[in-house]
Amino acid sequence: MERQRRPRIVIIGAGFGGLHAARQFVKEDVDVLLIDRNNFHTFTPLLYQVATCALDSGEIAYPVRGIFRDKANISFLMGEVTTIDTNAQTVRVRVNGTARIETYDKLIVAAGSVTNFFGMDTVQQYSFELKDLRDSVTLRNHILKLFEKAAWAEDPTYRQALSTIVVVGGGPTGIETAGAIRELYAHVLHKEYANTPGMQLEPRVILVEMTDALLRPYPPKLQAAALRQLESLGVDVRLNTALKDAAKDHVILGDDSIIPTYTLIWSAGVKAAPVGELLNVPLQRGARVPVKPTMAVENLDNVYVVGDMAYLEDENGMPYPMIIPIAQQQGILAAKNILRGYAGQEPEHFTYSSRGIMATIGRSRAVAWIYHRIQLTGYLAWAAWLVLHLVELMGFRNRLNVLINWTWNYITYDRSVRLIEENTIDDRADTIEKPEVLPVEAEVA
Amino acid sequence: MERQRRPRIVIIGAGFGGLHAARQFVKEDVDVLLIDRNNFHTFTPLLYQVATCALDSGEIAYPVRGIFRDKANISFLMGEVTTIDTNAQTVRVRVNGTARIETYDKLIVAAGSVTNFFGMDTVQQYSFELKDLRDSVTLRNHILKLFEKAAWAEDPTYRQALSTIVVVGGGPTGIETAGAIRELYAHVLHKEYANTPGMQLEPRVILVEMTDALLRPYPPKLQAAALRQLESLGVDVRLNTALKDAAKDHVILGDDSIIPTYTLIWSAGVKAAPVGELLNVPLQRGARVPVKPTMAVENLDNVYVVGDMAYLEDENGMPYPMIIPIAQQQGILAAKNILRGYAGQEPEHFTYSSRGIMATIGRSRAVAWIYHRIQLTGYLAWAAWLVLHLVELMGFRNRLNVLINWTWNYITYDRSVRLIEENTIDDRADTIEKPEVLPVEAEVA
Repeated sequence: MERQRRPRIVIIGAGFGGLHAARQFVKEDVDVLLIDRNNFHTFTPLLYQVATCALDSGEIAYPVRGIFRDKANISFLMGEVTTIDTNAQTVRVRVNGTARIETYDKLIVAAGSVTNFFGMDTVQQYSFELKDLRDSVTLRNHILKLFEKAAWAEDPTYRQALSTIVVVGGGPTGIETAGAIRELYAHVLHKEYANTPGMQLEPRVILVEMTDALLRPYPPKLQAAALRQLESLGVDVRLNTALKDAAKDHVILGDDSIIPTYTLIWSAGVKAAPVGELLNVPLQRGARVPVKPTMAVENLDNVYVVGDMAYLEDENGMPYPMIIPIAQQQGILAAKNILRGYAGQEPEHFTYSSRGIMATIGRSRAVAWIYHRIQLTGYLAWAAWLVLHLVELMGFRNRLNVLINWTWNYITYDRSVRLIEENTIDDRADTIEKPEVLPVEAEVA
Repeated sequence: MERQRRPRIVIIGAGFGGLHAARQFVKEDVDVLLIDRNNFHTFTPLLYQVATCALDSGEIAYPVRGIFRDKANISFLMGEVTTIDTNAQTVRVRVNGTARIETYDKLIVAAGSVTNFFGMDTVQQYSFELKDLRDSVTLRNHILKLFEKAAWAEDPTYRQALSTIVVVGGGPTGIETAGAIRELYAHVLHKEYANTPGMQLEPRVILVEMTDALLRPYPPKLQAAALRQLESLGVDVRLNTALKDAAKDHVILGDDSIIPTYTLIWSAGVKAAPVGELLNVPLQRGARVPVKPTMAVENLDNVYVVGDMAYLEDENGMPYPMIIPIAQQQGILAAKNILRGYAGQEPEHFTYSSRGIMATIGRSRAVAWIYHRIQLTGYLAWAAWLVLHLVELMGFRNRLNVLINWTWNYITYDRSVRLIEENTIDDRADTIEKPEVLPVEAEVA
């Protein structure tokens, strides 16, 4: 008997959760529509490497249509979901100023997370984020532009402010970014700006963390190692310190001390992507959508939420963290449970299989907690981090290029992608009012 | 006896002419200030490869400060020259909304060329250029965005217009771009958009050339080979055809035929960069600055102009063409003549030493005229083109990455950098008013 219509699965988000879900449906008897605002998947763990001139944006992004090139049942739509109607089983997608209505039989929502500023408006206004490719290119342009300004600035106070960066948040993104910027200074910018007559830049990187330790989920020994390694790089780490407020040209810390800076990087919080609100269900902490252990939403049997957006508690009553392996495994499980349903089988429950966690601090500096048993620091942890990220990176070409860039950077201490791309220049850099040279008339006189 | 002050050489432009001039001064007893609007040098012959998703922007751009990292007497200033005062021997540079006055003892102007629209305002308004890195990323985003639109467009006429590209100009840039876009269609986009339900894209690339041959300076045999190779790729070449007018959604050719398209690429003319006007000397054809065979400007003995901006006639009374080897050799000569002057020696005159010219059309398709004697076509010419461009590309890392990308593209027919970067989205793509789907209400009803 021929089926009248194949079931249609709509997946929102081509991040790690959505991509792994979509892959489960290849060659299955369903049609899949994958929706994302970008036409590419981003390897988010390396965003900070684009921001710090080590990798090109194309090396950490891979076109979605390329990933599913020969998969006849997977379609892609570039657009933004603005409405989800769980009764009619439709999503409304904004595409280039017009809109499409797409129907689904099953919906997987995997839109990831966004920066959480916890309502601090001035911090949001004056800080940089590192959540997507655009953020990382914007930050790269900004840092390099300020250095070009600093190189010719005659007022030492202003010059110091231009070359001071404050990173807030002692999680992996915060320590990776702080370490990488410090290395960019020490090995590249320091040399390149040294020959400008009459000026010597002394860049500062300050890492601010509210609690008494970096890398909260790690064992104390690794937390201490991360701190030690960051400080050995020259990063000024301030534990037990909150960010109180931010302005265009300074930040204020919890002890009311003022740090003159034009670069505040906020990596102290994330929350679920706002698309979760479209489901009209009560949300949990961090705007996450509560799900059953099958990844289906309570009372919305045809809707699954996975990854950073999903709120699910582990056996100890703790919510699963917002990390990539969990998004991947939940995406796979949601897809499998949908297929099990069509096959008349019972759904399975989520159990997290972890290979451990790791974070890198810089060249030969890292911490790794393999299988939550083996604790590695320094060179060994860094080598493990390198291998894992190369393996995880999508696409052969990207992997090979990234390997070459990393090898080259390692041998030479170089960072090749130090480009201020005009069309991506951050406007905030231009709005700094204090002139870095005397008024022209004064100088001429 | 100690010299009171070392001579100061100001060079405007970090293109091929300016860079080669600056290199002559390394370790010499002079101070050099190199000024450019960008903080990077661009390998312009490969701009079309960025526009057609084959290379990342970082692979054809190299930071100026990196090139002169350990050269203590070469400084760099990122900014735009707005005034040249040849009496006071100063240049005024706009830097981030403020300005600097820089004095010079000798000035080398090497700001290259800009697109020449010959006063056709609508063409300028609606066309894309390929003169700098920004242009190439803008064009890449545009082409990919239109394809995402076309993939879901239901009106076949509109779909065809979205996937039609008109390239104007049968010079190297025009044929390289037309060929590369056609290959991008044939080998990549064709496969990736094939699986969208109910639609089949039939992209067209039309190359329009006003005269009766492509590649004007080449011998007839190579001109014919270029035409044959382009047509074998599927490019629709229209010789003896002018572009009459352009609008948002179509172009009009000289025979009044109308081609519906949203992508017009103009590569039919260049003129000297407008900074030449700041010298207040009568300009030659193409806004070029007339120079003596020493590269010095008549009556402005401390000012040299080189490369695309310089007007100098060869022994046959023909002006030297605007090509890279001439810019390189003129930059070197201007610098040498400045040094010869300080050494009390007579200046030398420019003579062009040419290794020939070549242009690529696509995979295994090219023409080369080696030393203006040996004529190569097809695979051999293409291999020669590849080797030359790899050798010429600056910076070890870039060269190796480019080699890998090219090898990978060649083996797999792939183009890896198919990214629509949000912050570089061309606004024109959003202003297309014709909706590609029915109004939402009609569709829902």
